[in-house]
Amino acid sequence: MTAFQTERTIRFSDCDPAGIVFYPQYFVMFNGLVEDWFNGPLDLGWHRLVLERQVGLPTVHLEADFKAVSRLGDRVTLSLAVERLGERSLTLDLACHGQADRALRMRARQVIVTTSLVTHQAIPIPSDLREAIERSANSI
Amino acid sequence: MTAFQTERTIRFSDCDPAGIVFYPQYFVMFNGLVEDWFNGPLDLGWHRLVLERQVGLPTVHLEADFKAVSRLGDRVTLSLAVERLGERSLTLDLACHGQADRALRMRARQVIVTTSLVTHQAIPIPSDLREAIERSANSI
Amino acid sequence: MTAFQTERTIRFSDCDPAGIVFYPQYFVMFNGLVEDWFNGPLDLGWHRLVLERQVGLPTVHLEADFKAVSRLGDRVTLSLAVERLGERSLTLDLACHGQADRALRMRARQVIVTTSLVTHQAIPIPSDLREAIERSANSI
Amino acid sequence: MTAFQTERTIRFSDCDPAGIVFYPQYFVMFNGLVEDWFNGPLDLGWHRLVLERQVGLPTVHLEADFKAVSRLGDRVTLSLAVERLGERSLTLDLACHGQADRALRMRARQVIVTTSLVTHQAIPIPSDLREAIERSANSI
Repeated sequence: MTAFQTERTIRFSDCDPAGIVFYPQYFVMFNGLVEDWFNGPLDLGWHRLVLERQVGLPTVHLEADFKAVSRLGDRVTLSLAVERLGERSLTLDLACHGQADRALRMRARQVIVTTSLVTHQAIPIPSDLREAIERSANSI
Repeated sequence: MTAFQTERTIRFSDCDPAGIVFYPQYFVMFNGLVEDWFNGPLDLGWHRLVLERQVGLPTVHLEADFKAVSRLGDRVTLSLAVERLGERSLTLDLACHGQADRALRMRARQVIVTTSLVTHQAIPIPSDLREAIERSANSI
Repeated sequence: MTAFQTERTIRFSDCDPAGIVFYPQYFVMFNGLVEDWFNGPLDLGWHRLVLERQVGLPTVHLEADFKAVSRLGDRVTLSLAVERLGERSLTLDLACHGQADRALRMRARQVIVTTSLVTHQAIPIPSDLREAIERSANSI
Repeated sequence: MTAFQTERTIRFSDCDPAGIVFYPQYFVMFNGLVEDWFNGPLDLGWHRLVLERQVGLPTVHLEADFKAVSRLGDRVTLSLAVERLGERSLTLDLACHGQADRALRMRARQVIVTTSLVTHQAIPIPSDLREAIERSANSI
């Protein structure tokens, strides 16, 4: 049921003085994953949505469990599945796995709403975005 | 029941192209709040704990709700309360409020475990840390 | 000839796996220093300048020398002096000193231009900003 | 004379409220470029060098010129050339070009020294690193 995944090396700038990923950095990585999903399979252009169409995609709820540490130089797989597609919100199931051991490093559930960047109020998910997500889910 | 709080201005480097706090940055701010709590009221020295005593304080679980946006230049109050002090874990209730409107911007529940930075395995909360936290909670 | 200075503790999120400040983070700290200078002594509001008046303050040239490492938990002083106030540019002399040893950690020379955030073209320094900087320099 | 280059999309997390790359983020990108060069063509493993062999690669001098803005969604090429290979230091010529317009966005000259992460003192460039860099330069 995974809709999209990318691979990545854990970088120096991701890590803290304990030599492991500083946990907020996982959310920066996931934001990049969602951008790649929009720019790639969804073919919508994250930057066009945000800059030209003034559609915001803020996070309203987040839950995360951290199961094992990721270290500098580790190759990881970031994956994304659509858990729920609502009227004005999108729930994503996000995970980071180590490639060497296939072990789950961390997992998150993220609820994103679509907003107007002019008013910062919720708006219905734009129809082309909804269709692209539905198409992406069906093609799996 | 707030154990500790600090004030802060939302900076340019905290904000995204939508002109609001990029959400992972809240967790960077809260990490700073916890460091200030350790360095201040707990009088333990976050850096001594991490660098000299090789005690890690990784997050194992996180839940967050984002209620309102914080903008560049906003003055905010970051606050911390101890929800639970376990054998090897500490649950914190964290919040960010706007100062102008007193409105809740976001709230998080964070479970931290104490680990050995040599083995990355959980260890009992060091007794001086436990006592400092209990003292801090009782003094409220 | 220092126009402005602030104090700061080196945080966990500033440091890399070598346990010292990750060098790009110095520039994030200096950006915060310049914001505090605008919000404080210059009394202009960095956020009003950027968000309401759409004045950009991009860096066009930067030179930096790193003399000694800063470690997690170090107390440092960040300082700023105006080296040159041009028609459309401002040259700042920035430094970070350790408080315990008074030693210079790093020093930077930064040339900032004022731009329109609509066209991203250089514009003359707004007169109220110029006057505030001149007043700030004379008051030393 | 370019020794190594990579491609990248400018991400949401790279950008500031002005919608353009926040300049310290260029140095984070370049750090990633150098890591990829070590992990790829030099075949040395940045993480093994830093974590296992305790070799630090701090920056001691930096100069940068910012010529044009990079915006959210831009595809850019990051490139690296070895300008000088000294006894204990390495000078890199780094650049970021836009792919759509081939225009230079920014260019930096970075002097890195090799240090012991135990003493934080400079050490001669390890012989395998020196040979790999010389091989990389000759193969162009």
